[in-house]
Amino acid sequence: MNGAESLVRTLVGGGVNVCFTNPGTSEMHFVAALDRVDGMRCVLGLFEGVVTGAADGYYRMADKPAATLLHLGPGLSNGLANIHNANKAMSGMVNIVGDHATYHRQYDAPLTSDIEGLARPLSHWVKTSPNAMSVAGDGALAIQAARQPPGKIATLILPADTAWNDSSGPANVPPPEKPAAPSSDAVDAAARVLRSGEPTLILLTGRAVRAEGLALAGKIAAKTGARLSAQGSNARTQRGRGRVSVERIPYVVDQALRVLAGLKHIILVGAKMPVAFFAYPNKPSKLYPEDCRGHVLARPEEDQIAALEMLCEAVDARRTPPPVTNDDKPRPAAGAITSEALGQSIGALLPENAIVADEAVTTGRGFFAPTKAAAPHDWLSNMGGSIGLGPPLATGAAVACPDRKVVGLQADGSAMYTVQALWTQAREGLDVTTVLFSNRVYQILKGELANVGAGNPGRKALDMLDIGHPDIDWVGLAKSLGVPGARVTDMEGFNRRFAEGLATPGPYLVEVVL
Amino acid sequence: MNGAESLVRTLVGGGVNVCFTNPGTSEMHFVAALDRVDGMRCVLGLFEGVVTGAADGYYRMADKPAATLLHLGPGLSNGLANIHNANKAMSGMVNIVGDHATYHRQYDAPLTSDIEGLARPLSHWVKTSPNAMSVAGDGALAIQAARQPPGKIATLILPADTAWNDSSGPANVPPPEKPAAPSSDAVDAAARVLRSGEPTLILLTGRAVRAEGLALAGKIAAKTGARLSAQGSNARTQRGRGRVSVERIPYVVDQALRVLAGLKHIILVGAKMPVAFFAYPNKPSKLYPEDCRGHVLARPEEDQIAALEMLCEAVDARRTPPPVTNDDKPRPAAGAITSEALGQSIGALLPENAIVADEAVTTGRGFFAPTKAAAPHDWLSNMGGSIGLGPPLATGAAVACPDRKVVGLQADGSAMYTVQALWTQAREGLDVTTVLFSNRVYQILKGELANVGAGNPGRKALDMLDIGHPDIDWVGLAKSLGVPGARVTDMEGFNRRFAEGLATPGPYLVEVVL
Repeated sequence: MNGAESLVRTLVGGGVNVCFTNPGTSEMHFVAALDRVDGMRCVLGLFEGVVTGAADGYYRMADKPAATLLHLGPGLSNGLANIHNANKAMSGMVNIVGDHATYHRQYDAPLTSDIEGLARPLSHWVKTSPNAMSVAGDGALAIQAARQPPGKIATLILPADTAWNDSSGPANVPPPEKPAAPSSDAVDAAARVLRSGEPTLILLTGRAVRAEGLALAGKIAAKTGARLSAQGSNARTQRGRGRVSVERIPYVVDQALRVLAGLKHIILVGAKMPVAFFAYPNKPSKLYPEDCRGHVLARPEEDQIAALEMLCEAVDARRTPPPVTNDDKPRPAAGAITSEALGQSIGALLPENAIVADEAVTTGRGFFAPTKAAAPHDWLSNMGGSIGLGPPLATGAAVACPDRKVVGLQADGSAMYTVQALWTQAREGLDVTTVLFSNRVYQILKGELANVGAGNPGRKALDMLDIGHPDIDWVGLAKSLGVPGARVTDMEGFNRRFAEGLATPGPYLVEVVL
Repeated sequence: MNGAESLVRTLVGGGVNVCFTNPGTSEMHFVAALDRVDGMRCVLGLFEGVVTGAADGYYRMADKPAATLLHLGPGLSNGLANIHNANKAMSGMVNIVGDHATYHRQYDAPLTSDIEGLARPLSHWVKTSPNAMSVAGDGALAIQAARQPPGKIATLILPADTAWNDSSGPANVPPPEKPAAPSSDAVDAAARVLRSGEPTLILLTGRAVRAEGLALAGKIAAKTGARLSAQGSNARTQRGRGRVSVERIPYVVDQALRVLAGLKHIILVGAKMPVAFFAYPNKPSKLYPEDCRGHVLARPEEDQIAALEMLCEAVDARRTPPPVTNDDKPRPAAGAITSEALGQSIGALLPENAIVADEAVTTGRGFFAPTKAAAPHDWLSNMGGSIGLGPPLATGAAVACPDRKVVGLQADGSAMYTVQALWTQAREGLDVTTVLFSNRVYQILKGELANVGAGNPGRKALDMLDIGHPDIDWVGLAKSLGVPGARVTDMEGFNRRFAEGLATPGPYLVEVVL
């Protein structure tokens, strides 16, 4: 058994059953080994940003890492932006990056580069396997690193000769680590704050925004009068009818300052003290009042559910009913297309147990409120701010959950970075309905140009924000990559075509002309 | 004048007149400054690989660097694969990467990452500007670094507050450095080798494969009986009727070994001793015989033309006529589409003074011979082996040379990495005819799977190399991005549509179904 096969067997043995790939010559032995090992699903992406973004989406829904297969330094580089996003989402991922044979590196052939140097800024664990005998053991270490709570980026570099030389067979991977137990001191401190009667916010993310965490946090808030919020973005929020609904800290600084004004305490459950996404002249970086104190109930790597259970106990909220959403779901909107109308129709039509991959950016800022009482669903957001996550995220979520409908809420500017994901959705028959908001502009930047005080933009500046001229034909683009779709220009059309997409097995794209 | 404006004025003053951009919030002051400064052309790309690949193409044709404008670590990351290619092509480039305001970085907002760490492996010069007063001076240093012969990657990181705070105005940029004079010892040594009568190859790249260098090298070869070859890939080769034609070292190891067998000496003019692109089990990394010695006539940073002039003098070849190609150009081929037929028709139809951006990969390996006697043209190759350079390279070359026709010879698998470049070609009305070879497979990898001895591939392995299912509709894809085109399935169709593309001002795509 060669090194490549020992690695594939180690991955499968370690519960890594999906590999998102964009291979090249140096990875051919790994590819060939796939036919000799059962239990590994391989999903091809035509660009590496699709591969790494899909691994992020997979982790969020499967709660275990996928592998990626990337071709030397440039292949890794193309995947880095979505590795950045996965890193911020605390998604685990095992990247396998092929390299030249160890003895070939000295010749500085065209594809030679410093792969470790490229990997390090965005990986928690990086190693170049020195020989075929080490590959399986290094693979096991990579899986362990990737599974370290709450989820880490592990990058294993695989020189070609370590793949083709003889190995000593697969390595065992120890069972996943459990998240660390929360500190009872932290629970006591949070309970004291909640009993103080001072204005307090419980700020949630990570596992705390899944249904179980929200129910516990909801009881605590109901019992103590504390406010409840999720971070500005969150890896996976479980929401909809019958669940405890939370707002998010707004992106716009002035709105966030208003929301957080007057607070004396923020209890952090997996979350960080809220700061502005960007700095702006004469606006603060910190979004909370000067005299507001943060209290860590549970760090990202700690067991947030256990911490909330302990806090629930400490404030005697166990029998308090959680304030779940029981509103009727909205009815589909009619007439002209607006952000509000879209939110309403999405809230009305979202199917039970859907997964929403949200990269709607400006168009989608108001979607949270009207989808609060939609059928129960999971909502995945972009955690790192690098646009071009949405289509891969939807792809990976659909691979992880073949029995659930995935809905991509997608801005046009962002979609263009990783549009190749549509092809993977078609190839794999993934059940993803993409709602593509076509405003033909980097709309967020128009606002930011004013926010940063850059003055009245002229023609040249505006041209750099305008992605029309030519307008992208999204239905044509999707069709060219094997995904059927339709264009809509009013809400009646949207309701019909969105429903059609939801009723169609496999991928579908609704282009919403704004 | 704020820091951003001082930087834009410094760039324009330093002869950097083109900026390929994909900006975000942190770059808004730079964008706004563009309207206040004349002399900077801004070209928007919808993905950063387009931006950096275009800067490479621009440098190769303009012989001076363009700037790029990128958004924090992820924006830079998306551009790295084509920065890798530019690095190997020795193309100069000034990357300007926006960052959070200096005081905001400590808060670890979502887009925070180690930008310097990401930039360093592929940049010769990296600096984060500390304040607005330093930005112009740092910009001048970046330009100097990028122009250092033969051309370098300079990356200037621009925190948002250094862009918006007050500056002290633009900085002066000293005139470009000239390449270092060649060593007369090296010339003497090469002359001795040539006089020895032992089998000798003169291996050329860089300026030596432009018309002037080839004419000099041709005289030397004709006079001394030495053989002449270009590297396997070269940044810009001037070729066609009336010029000295050179073959390239073959990509396939066994072919290269045959070509180089028996050599005792290789005289290197900007080139390196030839090595295999990849290592293969039981094949050598070095493509030249054990007892073959290399002799550096001119390093990449030295004046290769002066070195060839001196060598020409030393071997008394000044009056020797260079062996220029005077064959008739081929006639367009008819019948079924084959690689040979395509090469012949391209050789027949290529217009005078065309620029060929070659990323045809397997389909194009045989195109050099039949285009030898085509109308004079420039041929740009992928130097770093990271696929996805072709469409951006064509884009940048067209920006640099608006009066010349650019012909992209493009493999389908490679095109998918940076397909967004078609939109930029449409937006800017760039005169690029793309010939898209659609074989619906990573054909090169099918060969490599056998070459690396990975055995008989099964279904799963083959699926990872197959980019059909669904087949990409390239004409539809191009149209969706604003580029007209046509699909051809025989050589008559190819000849007609290729001619139509060449006759059409602006971008056009011919999908060649293989």
